[in-house]
Amino acid sequence: MVNYPNKKKMPSSFTAHPVEGNKHYTALRGMNLEEDLNLSNSYYLESDIAVIYKKPTPIQVVKVDYPKRSAARIVEAYYRKPSTTDYNGLYRGRYIDFEAKETKVNYFPFKNISDHQIKHLERVKRHGGIAFLIIAFTTRNEAYLIDASYVCELYRTSSHRQITYDQVKQHGYPIPQGYQPRLDYLKILDEYYFKEGS
Amino acid sequence: MVNYPNKKKMPSSFTAHPVEGNKHYTALRGMNLEEDLNLSNSYYLESDIAVIYKKPTPIQVVKVDYPKRSAARIVEAYYRKPSTTDYNGLYRGRYIDFEAKETKVNYFPFKNISDHQIKHLERVKRHGGIAFLIIAFTTRNEAYLIDASYVCELYRTSSHRQITYDQVKQHGYPIPQGYQPRLDYLKILDEYYFKEGS
Repeated sequence: MVNYPNKKKMPSSFTAHPVEGNKHYTALRGMNLEEDLNLSNSYYLESDIAVIYKKPTPIQVVKVDYPKRSAARIVEAYYRKPSTTDYNGLYRGRYIDFEAKETKVNYFPFKNISDHQIKHLERVKRHGGIAFLIIAFTTRNEAYLIDASYVCELYRTSSHRQITYDQVKQHGYPIPQGYQPRLDYLKILDEYYFKEGS
Repeated sequence: MVNYPNKKKMPSSFTAHPVEGNKHYTALRGMNLEEDLNLSNSYYLESDIAVIYKKPTPIQVVKVDYPKRSAARIVEAYYRKPSTTDYNGLYRGRYIDFEAKETKVNYFPFKNISDHQIKHLERVKRHGGIAFLIIAFTTRNEAYLIDASYVCELYRTSSHRQITYDQVKQHGYPIPQGYQPRLDYLKILDEYYFKEGS
């Protein structure tokens, strides 16, 4: 397992909000967006529903040792800033591309997304792909899928340098949570992106 | 620049075959498929023609130092086998996925491609993406685009565990070489994948 640079583990006793509906699993273990998405994507892959992967974390290798009779060993390397998004793939014949972000507060600050990533999402839209963000409000145990168009426009025009929980709720779609897949974000695509004529 | 595990640098004086047509640049510096594709993809991106990237090399991080006031430093890590292909992206509204391989001999041995990668290419085809291989015969300075269907079938059925130069030539398409883009593989897609009705 790769140790992703931004990976945050919630304490297993994390229960900031009361348990509601079928959200027991997240309430018990705390929401970990990356893990939930990786598990969901594995489920989609194994069920032959979609082919969506998280890209490997880009790492700049500086020095490698080649010990005799064993694998090359990297002894100096640094994490690099990704120039694209974390996830892409293929669903129902369409190119899918998204970035996933967690926030503990009632807004998502734009300093946590790079110019490169915004530009990449805009490119994907322009070339006919489906581009969006998944934003998880971890203390609420809620995750939303929100189209890249809205977020990119806000990023370019808003002086507040953030998108609020209310804006996400108004312009995005809550992602159904369950046991398998944990975050069924493709359901949102089925409902809102694959309607007739789209 | 990442040091990719399989990166092979040709000596700058490499001129195994006589210079023909517009192939001066490769004849002079030797063909380096990965570099040629990265430059071609940068050109496609900057010209707003397509959004295609090489995925970062997957690296398993074992130990990280966090020196005060400076960036996290990875001090032990290993290259991992990729479970998918090296390149994917978006062109003319379609999902594109391919693996690029060099060979110095008159065939490409199947031991140099993994079961996982073949399975991935088959999945991409099944879900409506465009999947292919780019195979470069470096001593000939020739590169071919060949659809994944043919290669995957051969991989599954042939007892020879290889695809020969003649088979590639017969079932694939030679990729035009030039100054920019160096390997204009999207031209092949235009001609053979984006015909009316496809």
